[in-house]
Amino acid sequence: MSDANANPGTSPSSGMRDFLPLEAAHRRRVLNAIVSSYRRDGFSEIGTPCMERLEVLQNAQGGENDKLTYKVLKRGDKLSAALQAHPMRELADAGLRFDLTVPLSRFVGHHSAELPLPFKAIQVGPVWRAERPQKGRFREFIQCDIDILGEASSHAEIELILATAKCLSELGVDGTQIRINDRRIITQFARYCGFADSFFETFFIALDKLDKIGLDGVVREFQASGAQPQAIHKFQSFLGAKAGASSTLRELQAEFGPATDAACDDVDEIIRGVEKASAGRVAITFDLTLVRGMGYYTGPIFEAVHPQYASSLGGGGRYDGMIGRFSGRSIPACGFSIGFERLLDLIAQRGQMDPGPERCALLYDAGDDFIQALRAAEHLRSNGREILLVRRKKNFREQVSMLNKIGVHRALKLADTTHPDLAFFDIGPDARV
Amino acid sequence: MSDANANPGTSPSSGMRDFLPLEAAHRRRVLNAIVSSYRRDGFSEIGTPCMERLEVLQNAQGGENDKLTYKVLKRGDKLSAALQAHPMRELADAGLRFDLTVPLSRFVGHHSAELPLPFKAIQVGPVWRAERPQKGRFREFIQCDIDILGEASSHAEIELILATAKCLSELGVDGTQIRINDRRIITQFARYCGFADSFFETFFIALDKLDKIGLDGVVREFQASGAQPQAIHKFQSFLGAKAGASSTLRELQAEFGPATDAACDDVDEIIRGVEKASAGRVAITFDLTLVRGMGYYTGPIFEAVHPQYASSLGGGGRYDGMIGRFSGRSIPACGFSIGFERLLDLIAQRGQMDPGPERCALLYDAGDDFIQALRAAEHLRSNGREILLVRRKKNFREQVSMLNKIGVHRALKLADTTHPDLAFFDIGPDARV
Repeated sequence: MSDANANPGTSPSSGMRDFLPLEAAHRRRVLNAIVSSYRRDGFSEIGTPCMERLEVLQNAQGGENDKLTYKVLKRGDKLSAALQAHPMRELADAGLRFDLTVPLSRFVGHHSAELPLPFKAIQVGPVWRAERPQKGRFREFIQCDIDILGEASSHAEIELILATAKCLSELGVDGTQIRINDRRIITQFARYCGFADSFFETFFIALDKLDKIGLDGVVREFQASGAQPQAIHKFQSFLGAKAGASSTLRELQAEFGPATDAACDDVDEIIRGVEKASAGRVAITFDLTLVRGMGYYTGPIFEAVHPQYASSLGGGGRYDGMIGRFSGRSIPACGFSIGFERLLDLIAQRGQMDPGPERCALLYDAGDDFIQALRAAEHLRSNGREILLVRRKKNFREQVSMLNKIGVHRALKLADTTHPDLAFFDIGPDARV
Repeated sequence: MSDANANPGTSPSSGMRDFLPLEAAHRRRVLNAIVSSYRRDGFSEIGTPCMERLEVLQNAQGGENDKLTYKVLKRGDKLSAALQAHPMRELADAGLRFDLTVPLSRFVGHHSAELPLPFKAIQVGPVWRAERPQKGRFREFIQCDIDILGEASSHAEIELILATAKCLSELGVDGTQIRINDRRIITQFARYCGFADSFFETFFIALDKLDKIGLDGVVREFQASGAQPQAIHKFQSFLGAKAGASSTLRELQAEFGPATDAACDDVDEIIRGVEKASAGRVAITFDLTLVRGMGYYTGPIFEAVHPQYASSLGGGGRYDGMIGRFSGRSIPACGFSIGFERLLDLIAQRGQMDPGPERCALLYDAGDDFIQALRAAEHLRSNGREILLVRRKKNFREQVSMLNKIGVHRALKLADTTHPDLAFFDIGPDARV
């Protein structure tokens, strides 16, 4: 298993990533831009720890993500006791959060007396999922969430969708579209097809994969899970018919019956509210096949998609039941989460990476006085410039190419710092100085 | 153990913290100010994952912190295999980082071909230690590190100390002092007293507690660990004598002999360099009793202290051996870490919390048109204002007190948004509107 020389190697843990300077700086700029945008819209940042008690995470109906939780081993006597018990007791007492919604729900339950309700929250930070490592899937990744707690009406959804769409647009990602559905409509869809109540969870999970595995794939999953053939047939003909998949809200309401009235009214109000408040700038459409993975959603669900990107850029929905499961006090809740890694991916793909502030090297030679160089650098920084003090090497061309890699494209010689006009010059592949 | 009703409660995991809006916003502002200050000094931010392979963490000579590592349980088949083996194999394959120096060392070993050397790094982020929960000690806390990799001379220490002192000063924390010592001098001190080489580790650990347990406490620890009585006596008389503890570098050099020549020259060069480059603004003094907890230091060590704060605000030193232990390529290294939590504590204690940008409530009533309120809020935000859309409640006084808690101290009524002069007014405990 381990190297004979006990050298542990230098690669990050499987599925985890290091960030080199240009990427790290870009990530910080985008993250701060997201937080600033949401703050202007009146949201307030809060913070929760990365690690939560295991019972908090397990209480959360996180769907598939429950199984992907990284568990933290007990320590000392507690670990020994767990190992020695028959049968062996739980070896872990904590876990790394798999999303930001579960910790927020615990937080709001804990601090509701210290917060105005409705409360509009921002939470950004890393989450962890023990996914099988594969391209574009990371085991540690950043989420950027906004949530409105204590607002039962569709005003919450409207404000969340507008704020998220505006944030994406401010980051230069134009053309985002919002897809919306409602968990109550999907539930009624399953019932309408004739699936048993006990099958609904399986129904959601399989339908959620429609984009990836197609209608035939979903049908095969239903069959493999032992669903009633008549229900599968009704599902297949409904979605297979062009009219079924593209039905309007009102057509579905007529087809599925009055059980969907409240949900359809809510979704309709959200669509009209978003369109009107944004003067049509935010594109939002109903989509019966949108599911979202989490088990905790209870009402409207939505996601942001972009024509140049295969996966959704973010998603969210209403999870009215969750806070009450922690605190006993029921507080309605709704949130929208931006998938930070995907957003960065799209920004890079569109060639929209902001180069950041100019960085300059102050070049000195081995024979120069280091303290004088330090003082000259300090003087240059006084107007906010980013100045990197660099001792010139013999192979300056190679040195320049490495400096370029960390975003340094300008330089100044120590000898020139006393001149009244600072003689900054470009450094790049053709540098001859 | 667990509640009968299976409600997991709402408190964070033991020793972990939630952050309410004012604190969370303050933390982000200070963190960004630190990164900006270090960037101006030419340092580049990099990122590493929070979780590292266990063998990486265990390779690191983290001193006491090795024992405080949170370990992450293996999953699936690997966990079953570990449990079923006789004797049982390691149940964890990863751990949460206990500092930022170990991940940085792995990072630099991995990416040295992509970085200019010397490379000046910034790394900020959470670290975890499974400490016994107690006042002022947290199990998850932020560190802000700068490091210079690939610079063997004292230029690294001088630049790190100047940058850290300036950063603290820019945050309004004036009066910071730097204490400096060298691991090679402490080692020679132990040898001079007559302690056996095998006792040096214990010597470091006990001496590190001098501030907390006093000279008598350190002596008792030596006795309990079975040190030679003559050595303890020599140690006690040397430090007990006023002249011993306050000896100058040159006096010690004469006393300890030529084995400390290189170390004393380095420390002397650093002290003179810092004083000269800062024109005396940065106070720096030699302190024979400074140890720093980590086992990986090899040369100069230093810390920043403040007369109004009992613990150090940060510390660091040279760890030339560590990167080579990961990559096989020896790269000299030196770093300075700011203890973010302590810094925030001191800033709060000094009443220097920055209130941040003005936040305003746009007040509407239940009878108002929500979409119109949204559009009015959006209009007000166009110049960068932070506008929180708020539906006025019957108990406005209570509502105001909650809004104050999240930093909202100004308001405007929806009806007044059409006036050419915006009628913002203060909201506070005496609000009557």
